Amino acid sequence: MASGKILVAQGGGPTAVINQTLAGVVLEARRFRQVERIYGARHGVRGIIDEDFVDLTQETSHNLELVANTPSSALGSTRDKPDEKYCQEIFKVLRAHQIEHFFYIGGNDSSDTVRIVSLEAQKAGYPLRCIHIPKTIDNDLVGSDHTPGFPSAARFVAQAFAGANLDNAALPGVYVGVVMGRHAGFLTAASALGKKFPEDGPHLIYLPERDFSIEKFLIEVKAVYLRYGRCVVAVSEGIHDASGTPILSLLAKDLERDAHGNVQLSGTGALADLLCEEIKAKLGIKRVRGDTFGYLQRSFIGCVSDVDQREAREVGEKAVQFAMWGKHDGSVAIRRTGFYSVDYDLLPLDAVAGKTRTMEDEFISASGTDVTDAFRMYLRPLLGSAMPDAFRLRFSPVEKVLKRT
Amino acid sequence: MASGKILVAQGGGPTAVINQTLAGVVLEARRFRQVERIYGARHGVRGIIDEDFVDLTQETSHNLELVANTPSSALGSTRDKPDEKYCQEIFKVLRAHQIEHFFYIGGNDSSDTVRIVSLEAQKAGYPLRCIHIPKTIDNDLVGSDHTPGFPSAARFVAQAFAGANLDNAALPGVYVGVVMGRHAGFLTAASALGKKFPEDGPHLIYLPERDFSIEKFLIEVKAVYLRYGRCVVAVSEGIHDASGTPILSLLAKDLERDAHGNVQLSGTGALADLLCEEIKAKLGIKRVRGDTFGYLQRSFIGCVSDVDQREAREVGEKAVQFAMWGKHDGSVAIRRTGFYSVDYDLLPLDAVAGKTRTMEDEFISASGTDVTDAFRMYLRPLLGSAMPDAFRLRFSPVEKVLKRT
Repeated sequence: MASGKILVAQGGGPTAVINQTLAGVVLEARRFRQVERIYGARHGVRGIIDEDFVDLTQETSHNLELVANTPSSALGSTRDKPDEKYCQEIFKVLRAHQIEHFFYIGGNDSSDTVRIVSLEAQKAGYPLRCIHIPKTIDNDLVGSDHTPGFPSAARFVAQAFAGANLDNAALPGVYVGVVMGRHAGFLTAASALGKKFPEDGPHLIYLPERDFSIEKFLIEVKAVYLRYGRCVVAVSEGIHDASGTPILSLLAKDLERDAHGNVQLSGTGALADLLCEEIKAKLGIKRVRGDTFGYLQRSFIGCVSDVDQREAREVGEKAVQFAMWGKHDGSVAIRRTGFYSVDYDLLPLDAVAGKTRTMEDEFISASGTDVTDAFRMYLRPLLGSAMPDAFRLRFSPVEKVLKRT
Repeated sequence: MASGKILVAQGGGPTAVINQTLAGVVLEARRFRQVERIYGARHGVRGIIDEDFVDLTQETSHNLELVANTPSSALGSTRDKPDEKYCQEIFKVLRAHQIEHFFYIGGNDSSDTVRIVSLEAQKAGYPLRCIHIPKTIDNDLVGSDHTPGFPSAARFVAQAFAGANLDNAALPGVYVGVVMGRHAGFLTAASALGKKFPEDGPHLIYLPERDFSIEKFLIEVKAVYLRYGRCVVAVSEGIHDASGTPILSLLAKDLERDAHGNVQLSGTGALADLLCEEIKAKLGIKRVRGDTFGYLQRSFIGCVSDVDQREAREVGEKAVQFAMWGKHDGSVAIRRTGFYSVDYDLLPLDAVAGKTRTMEDEFISASGTDVTDAFRMYLRPLLGSAMPDAFRLRFSPVEKVLKRT
């Protein structure tokens, strides 16, 4: 390569470890003598179109390490989804800057962006090496054991439900926690890892992989409530009825859609409130509380899996190695090799882009409202070390004096 | 004292460190040879009425230490507020069990419970030593520098806003985070400690200590948005208009009230959604997201201030010492003696019970939408050690090639 210029960008929703990947790309690229300049595009592909580049070669390695430990996309992100015309604009800019390696850190939609850019480059005969580097808290990329960002978000969700369960045990009632995840229930299912004792919540877990019926939901909540005097429920924001209609849209008046045609599910507490109102009205339970975890679960500073940090760094490093020593464009994927150990592959972009992984049947209990031990084994090592643990008093009852009967 | 029996209970909303206080009481009481039995009442005063006692003398110190590090009331809690009749029931039970020391760990309402029980005991000529031990994430107890539980919740809020600000910087728009606190804005104000760089959010902080006007709110959000292209807002759930009407009640249809006559503000995302809808409709900003921190902020496992843990333990220990060596009922209070160091006092119950502290004027900026450096100095040491820190890239812009003008 003549120019020695590489470009890196971050797309889609931020994660707690996406800057580990950025640091992995930049620090690894610096080791290659043919790399002369490392550019970062601000706000994803939008920054390419706008020629909004920063020179990361001029960043200190010390500050890169500090940024690596900071959540959310340090270069900024975008929801833009390039079509063919958009990609032609991208080429114009890449060509003008003589950029020959393009690394795009992102999820589902971003992998499709990389696929299109790669195709356009081939059509135009422009020598561009395109590598998609995975990140998404949804864990919905095909071909990967899991995706960087998911473990830290899963840790947040598990810790949140561990605490919510303790709160609900102290002041009993029904608690509904709504978790991100449009099509894939992995993050909602992570709530199960907050459970320690058999009586602990979450007692019911509702995933987008299974059709949701409000009638069945009410029957199940009531049964748990009668048994334990309380009920903790984890609900995916993406739950839908048998016809595929999101439960949220039963409530929402104006459905906001993004550039990808997706209905806005996050950033509103409507689904939790709807479900709580149903429980109050139909089951006559007075103390019903709902929380929507919203943006906290993907950007909370200080709740991160060290395993996730390490792997997010490594996918960035490997992306550069695949680009420099390999012969193909592709998408970096994590492959599990032991309990617990991983290795990295470069998958063809076609195998990943635009596809959505959902939870495998073996991870969902027959009841449809819990996870299996296979899922617990799958997720536990990802959550990392030093998971906070909950303990309870071992009650020795005192004999009643007045009410002895 | 003849019986050597003491009773401890936990009331009101759980905190992350309320079990430190429980452990402090139990472990300190064990050092006194006149203490024969340490009972715990399950679910606060409700457990006394029901004679639902457990013998904490039979708990291991090892497990007590583990429970101390677990959030939420290990004995269970209650929202019951005893009137005179209720208190007569309490006496009947205490007398029957020959209990002579009563420790109640709780907030505002619980301190009033202790005051009434203490009065009833005096009227009845029953030798009962009553000590109220403070806890509340609202920090609204009169006579204390701050209350155990607040620092850990404040740490959660500061970390949450630090992350939300980074997320909002990556994908710009308006973000509204709603924080607990009916009358006192301390916890909402803690959001300011998540801010590092001058351009960081929260850019606007709305406290119940200042009247809220939707018109003024929209003007202020618009001004920040025009300046930074984004806006992060912290809002207390207790904001109200000039007439004292909660802003939430502009929206909510059925206002749920607890036994204390308080309207339910938590456990619903309605306020955040209302404010977001106003911004979308009136300012025409498309990307507007709201989160309601809800129960996460008081029970999240794994986000705790070590200073808070230490002090919560000490108020429990001091309560026992005040009871055993003192001559009066009272409420334990934290007094700041240095930067940073504290000591503990026993205040008369009348001085604390039923009173509500709100944020001092010196803590609120003249604009009414920010805190002062005095508040930052007040809060910073309480958050504890190892606060996660946010770093950003130092951008070196690359010269444009195509769009050079």
